[in-house]
Amino acid sequence: MFKYELIKESKECKARLGKIYTNHGVIETPIFMPVGTKATVKAMTPEELKDLEAQIILGNTYHLYLRPGHDLIKEAGGLHKFMNWDRPILTDSGGFQVFSLGPLRKITEEGVEFRSHIDGSKHFISPEKSMEIQNYLGSDIMMAFDECAPYPASYEYVEKSMQRTTRWAKRCKDYHKNTDNQALFGIVQGGMYKDLRIESAKQITDLDFPGYAVGGLSVGEPRDLMCEVMDYTVDYLPKDKPRYLMGVGSPDYLFEAVERGIDMADCVLPTRMARHGAFMTSKGQLAIKNAKYKRDFKPIDENCGCYACRNYSRAYMRHLFGENEILGARLASIHNLFFLINLMKRIRISIMEDNFMNFKKEFYENYGY
Amino acid sequence: MFKYELIKESKECKARLGKIYTNHGVIETPIFMPVGTKATVKAMTPEELKDLEAQIILGNTYHLYLRPGHDLIKEAGGLHKFMNWDRPILTDSGGFQVFSLGPLRKITEEGVEFRSHIDGSKHFISPEKSMEIQNYLGSDIMMAFDECAPYPASYEYVEKSMQRTTRWAKRCKDYHKNTDNQALFGIVQGGMYKDLRIESAKQITDLDFPGYAVGGLSVGEPRDLMCEVMDYTVDYLPKDKPRYLMGVGSPDYLFEAVERGIDMADCVLPTRMARHGAFMTSKGQLAIKNAKYKRDFKPIDENCGCYACRNYSRAYMRHLFGENEILGARLASIHNLFFLINLMKRIRISIMEDNFMNFKKEFYENYGY
Ligand SMILES: [Zn+2]
Ligand SMILES: [Zn+2]
Repeated sequence: MFKYELIKESKECKARLGKIYTNHGVIETPIFMPVGTKATVKAMTPEELKDLEAQIILGNTYHLYLRPGHDLIKEAGGLHKFMNWDRPILTDSGGFQVFSLGPLRKITEEGVEFRSHIDGSKHFISPEKSMEIQNYLGSDIMMAFDECAPYPASYEYVEKSMQRTTRWAKRCKDYHKNTDNQALFGIVQGGMYKDLRIESAKQITDLDFPGYAVGGLSVGEPRDLMCEVMDYTVDYLPKDKPRYLMGVGSPDYLFEAVERGIDMADCVLPTRMARHGAFMTSKGQLAIKNAKYKRDFKPIDENCGCYACRNYSRAYMRHLFGENEILGARLASIHNLFFLINLMKRIRISIMEDNFMNFKKEFYENYGY
Repeated sequence: MFKYELIKESKECKARLGKIYTNHGVIETPIFMPVGTKATVKAMTPEELKDLEAQIILGNTYHLYLRPGHDLIKEAGGLHKFMNWDRPILTDSGGFQVFSLGPLRKITEEGVEFRSHIDGSKHFISPEKSMEIQNYLGSDIMMAFDECAPYPASYEYVEKSMQRTTRWAKRCKDYHKNTDNQALFGIVQGGMYKDLRIESAKQITDLDFPGYAVGGLSVGEPRDLMCEVMDYTVDYLPKDKPRYLMGVGSPDYLFEAVERGIDMADCVLPTRMARHGAFMTSKGQLAIKNAKYKRDFKPIDENCGCYACRNYSRAYMRHLFGENEILGARLASIHNLFFLINLMKRIRISIMEDNFMNFKKEFYENYGY
């Protein structure tokens, strides 16, 4: 079962409220999705994620394919069971990681041959193989195997890879049979070229997927350019399907995406920042290793209600990071994920009240954007 | 407030049941105490420790003195508040770590001059300084500043250091004024020499402390020798005071200690093993990185009721350790601490039922000792 319900459109911009129904529960959108790359959201238990009201998490096909292997996860009863998470899971296609391998991979029409970044072993992932892996993992939402063009890239390169992405999307759709339990999303590519984006959106939506992702953004281009591409791309996506912007997790990017009609986003940013002692707070970023926090007994964020802020001081947090204590990474991960999940909740409320643009303005002022 | 109540003596051996009353709660003995070296039991939150029914934890004076500094912890409101733990805390004297510094330290009658293992800075800890630090930390149980002789060591060396330990114990007692809130334990030394042990026990107990530790054991000597020393040493300790064996945390050592009348023990072993993927189980140690667990979907220990065993498979645990995921260290720490805390609970029940020796025999058979 998979269904998207459009609840409300903002009177101020393209922002919208919705609900996604899956076999593992309902997701309220717009939503930020924590990333559990290798079958674990780093430093967190599933129960802690639920305490933070995480509604859906990501798994990475490339990493899980290499280790522990999708066949092993199938044997374990699927990714949900393997990692003890009973809410929805979205898996990416593996494409992004494979293309990032640079000289270790070779792209042909059939698929991508690559060498593992771990042991150099040779592998081949095609659209069909990506579907097989994701079928084995048993995610609620699967992604079509696409080619994500780098930034910058020539018109010719982007056009070629966009056209191939469409052909691969069709192969994915043809291969994927478990449609009752796993919804396959198509991915729009086209780089920073307007006509290619529009062409890609038309081709991909013609294939009729239950949801659509905007790929190839947040790959190094300036924020304004990303916004511009979103501006015209989203207009070509149907209103009755969820829209997913891949790889976005800073507060400003989330605001900009939601304003332009995006429903879902994911990023390793909050947990990666956390492990380096960088906190997102209502007043901007806070680098806990800074000496000025040594005797600061206030919480990380006085406006935050998370477990870390309710129970620990900046001085203690700084001590934990100075000593490389695991608890530091844990508390920071809890805080940053709480911050983003809570931010999206407040964004949803602001859309409900047609107060989104005002909320965005206030947030930007306080955060220091 | 500090009081020890002897509840029951075993009919089979010197094992006994007791209760220790402190300002931060009651401790049922015999007890295993998890170690929170640097103001955190590695990888664990205080709430998780409470879920495991940890009744008291340790803090390390040497480490906390160096970083973040005992003055900072005092400013934070004491160690309990700093680390968000409201149950009893025991702090060691710093002596053991300082003496382990080898060439970096110089012992005189006044105290020990040493260089920090972190930055080489020069420091001096005397009995009085150790008391001051522990007063600032605000632990419920403090340890006298002793000299722990290495193993092996000559009779002359051990005698000299044992005599000095007594003089230092007296200086600790003279300095420590906050006796209502912090109980100071004396430490018996004397190496592996019976007459020195007995002499030390007499001298230290003459000073009349609210509790006594047996120091200088579990420093590399064979288990039989440790047992022999305990055999005669404990007889010279009063029955109405708690007895603490320092640095012991393997199941067999705990059994041997309890059998000889020990009430308290601590060790980093369960959490350190955990971070290396070594599990204590009802059937002996289990090294999760072993290839044979790759597709093993059973829990770590089928007889264990901990969070890790209830929710995760060996295959998943092995995957986490293979990927160096923090969750691996977390789950393993939960399991190993649960295992030891639960073992001590079962030991207490066996003493209550005068079934300790039988329980020990069965445990040893299953564990493979
Ligand atoms: Zn917080
Ligand atoms: Zn367990």
